[in-house]
Amino acid sequence: MVADQIIFYQEIGAEIFLCSADLEAYVVRGMDLETVRNIAIEEYLTNYIALGLKEKNLRFWFQTDYVTPYYRLRDMLSRKVTFSELNGIYGDLAPGKIFSVITQAADILHPQLEEFGGPRPTVVPVGADQDPHLRLTRDLASRFQTEFRFILPSSTYHRFMRGLHGGKMSSSDPKSYIALTDESKDAINKIMNAKTGGRATVDEQRKKGGIPGECMVYDLFLYHLIDDDQKLKNIYEDCISGARICGECKANCAELTVNFLREHQRRREKVRDVVDRILGKR
Amino acid sequence: MVADQIIFYQEIGAEIFLCSADLEAYVVRGMDLETVRNIAIEEYLTNYIALGLKEKNLRFWFQTDYVTPYYRLRDMLSRKVTFSELNGIYGDLAPGKIFSVITQAADILHPQLEEFGGPRPTVVPVGADQDPHLRLTRDLASRFQTEFRFILPSSTYHRFMRGLHGGKMSSSDPKSYIALTDESKDAINKIMNAKTGGRATVDEQRKKGGIPGECMVYDLFLYHLIDDDQKLKNIYEDCISGARICGECKANCAELTVNFLREHQRRREKVRDVVDRILGKR
Repeated sequence: MVADQIIFYQEIGAEIFLCSADLEAYVVRGMDLETVRNIAIEEYLTNYIALGLKEKNLRFWFQTDYVTPYYRLRDMLSRKVTFSELNGIYGDLAPGKIFSVITQAADILHPQLEEFGGPRPTVVPVGADQDPHLRLTRDLASRFQTEFRFILPSSTYHRFMRGLHGGKMSSSDPKSYIALTDESKDAINKIMNAKTGGRATVDEQRKKGGIPGECMVYDLFLYHLIDDDQKLKNIYEDCISGARICGECKANCAELTVNFLREHQRRREKVRDVVDRILGKR
Repeated sequence: MVADQIIFYQEIGAEIFLCSADLEAYVVRGMDLETVRNIAIEEYLTNYIALGLKEKNLRFWFQTDYVTPYYRLRDMLSRKVTFSELNGIYGDLAPGKIFSVITQAADILHPQLEEFGGPRPTVVPVGADQDPHLRLTRDLASRFQTEFRFILPSSTYHRFMRGLHGGKMSSSDPKSYIALTDESKDAINKIMNAKTGGRATVDEQRKKGGIPGECMVYDLFLYHLIDDDQKLKNIYEDCISGARICGECKANCAELTVNFLREHQRRREKVRDVVDRILGKR
């Protein structure tokens, strides 16, 4: 959904700044830079391009492999923030985390440097848990009015999808999500094992109806697979009336998912040269 | 004297890395970057070149205007240092100071990155008060053996010269030192007003002799103006015997200083194009 939003902004003329937070992964999660980069290219950049993000008006960077004005901004930002302030937001802070946090502020603000086109309105799509970070960045922006005349960045907030088993979706638990690079059989398997809003028996479900609000399969329809509101409404009503049973619903979901993944993975192969060009241009 | 040492190393074939710590001045002393840079160029780089540092085998940089591998090293260093460790060395730490401290470690270690020629022995001339920083940098170097095979940096330590009035020499008190850019009349004036090891009256001095160990004029001979040990010894002995009186000694010192400054300032003008080339090459 973040990808949809970014692509939408690009379509209406916005310049897109897309960051691989490799420093964050390196210092906070202890990963090595090469692994982080490969994930960023394979799981983020390539997917975004395959989903429709265009090369034009797109700037992609790694935090540890970018340009000097960005690093200079980071240095300057470090002067106007106190330790207590960061401590209040993030709790105990190792030096690496301080580097990472200030780098994230530079990620958001550097498109407004003269070297990148100067002050302009910006929108940052984040998860709700990232809100404190956005607020810190807005504060920092207001403290550098003399130097840079930053326009305070705006943000939009995404709901997190629950994991397929009903708990938290987590990259460390592959069964909790369908990756855009999953093979069809794995995707089908994950959907067939997903938590649904179904009842204990088919009879009970025919009588009482299912609960789409507790159904991860319905989430997939809602978030990803079905754009048409009327179709979604029909599924919803057929579910709560008991007309639609989990088995057929899962099969339907699996079919849509597999079709989407096949098409997406075909596009991934087609856009490899675009990805290489973007990486080369940095 | 640091300049003499650096020039000596360059003459015997070492590659010289010369840093303007503009980030430190910006975050810790609250100066703006342009002012810091002008000071670095006028008071450091130009003087070093005029004193004999060559363009060849010299790399000069500003901390806030350098190259990506240096910034990446800085990021990586931040992962393997704890807040308590920095706190133990530097006391209370603002985020800007943490940036500055880790940047200084990168200043010392980056010449050993592959991009700069790979691991090799390095010597860092510092003031004795900088020793804890060198030790931190050596610790960091040892923690990145897998990634970079750094050879632990060595350091040499310079005594601080006392100020001309006998107290601390400080850039915030121009009467405490003779700048290489001082005009002759100002330099003479400063020397004539310097604290000496002389007695209250000429008579007393003829009888008891002077105290060169407490004399800032003798310091100038010792540190800067006279290379010939025999000449220095003669001055020393003439002073303690009472044969040499402060007035003539100051006049002698002023003459040597003015000759040196005139020649140095002439050379400063001559090397402007070299300085511009070095700045352009960065």
